[in-house]
Amino acid sequence: MTEVPPAPARSVTERPVLHLGREGPREAPDAVAVEEPLEIRVDGDTVAVTMRTPGRDADLALGFLFAEGLIAGAEDVGTVAHCGRPGEEGYGNVLDVRSGAGGRIDAERVLEGRRWVTTSAACGVCGRRSIDGLLERCGAVDASTRIPAELVAAAVGRLGSVQPAFARTGGLHAAAISAADGTLLSAAEDVGRHNAVDKAVGALLRVRALGASRHAPPGPAPALLAVSGRTSFEIVQKAAAARLAVVAGVSAPSSLAVDLAENMRIALLGFVRDGRLNVYSNRWRLDAAAPAPRVGSPASP
Amino acid sequence: MTEVPPAPARSVTERPVLHLGREGPREAPDAVAVEEPLEIRVDGDTVAVTMRTPGRDADLALGFLFAEGLIAGAEDVGTVAHCGRPGEEGYGNVLDVRSGAGGRIDAERVLEGRRWVTTSAACGVCGRRSIDGLLERCGAVDASTRIPAELVAAAVGRLGSVQPAFARTGGLHAAAISAADGTLLSAAEDVGRHNAVDKAVGALLRVRALGASRHAPPGPAPALLAVSGRTSFEIVQKAAAARLAVVAGVSAPSSLAVDLAENMRIALLGFVRDGRLNVYSNRWRLDAAAPAPRVGSPASP
Repeated sequence: MTEVPPAPARSVTERPVLHLGREGPREAPDAVAVEEPLEIRVDGDTVAVTMRTPGRDADLALGFLFAEGLIAGAEDVGTVAHCGRPGEEGYGNVLDVRSGAGGRIDAERVLEGRRWVTTSAACGVCGRRSIDGLLERCGAVDASTRIPAELVAAAVGRLGSVQPAFARTGGLHAAAISAADGTLLSAAEDVGRHNAVDKAVGALLRVRALGASRHAPPGPAPALLAVSGRTSFEIVQKAAAARLAVVAGVSAPSSLAVDLAENMRIALLGFVRDGRLNVYSNRWRLDAAAPAPRVGSPASP
Repeated sequence: MTEVPPAPARSVTERPVLHLGREGPREAPDAVAVEEPLEIRVDGDTVAVTMRTPGRDADLALGFLFAEGLIAGAEDVGTVAHCGRPGEEGYGNVLDVRSGAGGRIDAERVLEGRRWVTTSAACGVCGRRSIDGLLERCGAVDASTRIPAELVAAAVGRLGSVQPAFARTGGLHAAAISAADGTLLSAAEDVGRHNAVDKAVGALLRVRALGASRHAPPGPAPALLAVSGRTSFEIVQKAAAARLAVVAGVSAPSSLAVDLAENMRIALLGFVRDGRLNVYSNRWRLDAAAPAPRVGSPASP
């Protein structure tokens, strides 16, 4: 098996962060884990797109194809190479695995009949494009919503009380949606964090408290999503689609979650626990008096 | 939107567990979070299969379709109904969302061009079938490997030392593969737990320490997978494909992870921390003197 060429990759980057805690506010760059999409192709056909931390992509592709039963070992693989040219946008995010001399890898034979198909034929996926696509579809979240930091912290602190099954098993993620005044509107638990968010959003859609047909004010509008764990691109994506102005997690956000939140005008908060929290984007939403930035203003680096 | 009929669901179940800790061994049933596949269809076409905790499936489907931009709200949906009949195997795991009077939901228009296709036309996915499929493809893991519990605990305890990026960001999952004597063979970090496992396995495939073409003994064989978080079906699936005899996590396993491990003759350990651990399956692998059970012996309930 030949690997050509290993793309440059880094697993940690920095974003400007506002720390709020007992010692008062403090600004400092904070290290966040890098998250970027990777498209895995077999002999040119896309078999999977996964959000991952760049680096060791050939190992990731080999391990994935092996787990899915597509290859029996490295001997089934000829070359593993990144698509495109260094310097191009999205370079390093598309990996083509070519069959070895022993025979063609049967990409149709995927575990349980699942397969992933991208309708785009472009050689290149990247975080920037994922953000632009969402921005185009959903638009940035309305600037009017403000939520005091104490209220966000309280909503995250209440997650435990909406987790009856977690208390018994320790094995479930929680998501809760509140109004800007702190009223709890919807909550859910699931083994998958993204499923917990889908269930919490879906419950509001079902009663027309969210979505295009939202009843003219049936109560306070959904504004804040609190999640029990880490915050990834996918979680912020779901909040953006639901027009939620603030997303707060107990643990760390990824780089792409921060960048998406910044662009969608969502305030993203992380490590909300023990009387502390970090603000990664759109901190003006925490201050009733702060002016909203112009739409389309440059995102943080 | 009409929802017919709500399928019975439970989010917590029990499995027999052996607790090992300072107070000595103790056997007791333990509560675990239920994990089962859900296939979401739109007007009969499969658009997604996700591992989820049963219950509130209509909310999950609505939230998912909304986040993906397929529906603008509940008004786009006519009925949401489980496929099949109560009592059938897998009943409750396939949900069909029918378009409302306003127009047909365009299932082809999925975010970023991603869509999920199942080649199986059968109305019914279930955990049992997922396990049988893997058992048929991979076979149960060879019974010869035994690893003392202390060694498993030490491997999990060492996860921190293979997590340089986690130490800086708090945002990454870790996976490490060791031999039965405790030798660390491979480790990886990633924002996705499944990606970390793929990278750790892929690295061993690349150097032919794993897979069909494994070199006649180049060193101790891979035997133990340690992961930093919760253990789901997908993690045990990847361990089964790699023929790893023991899987150990810092946190809780799901019901389907326990059932798959039981059937694949994998010892599954959870909550491995603070001098304690729980054994959920195939505890004989922790005892050099214990006899291996007959292949095909009945799984735990």
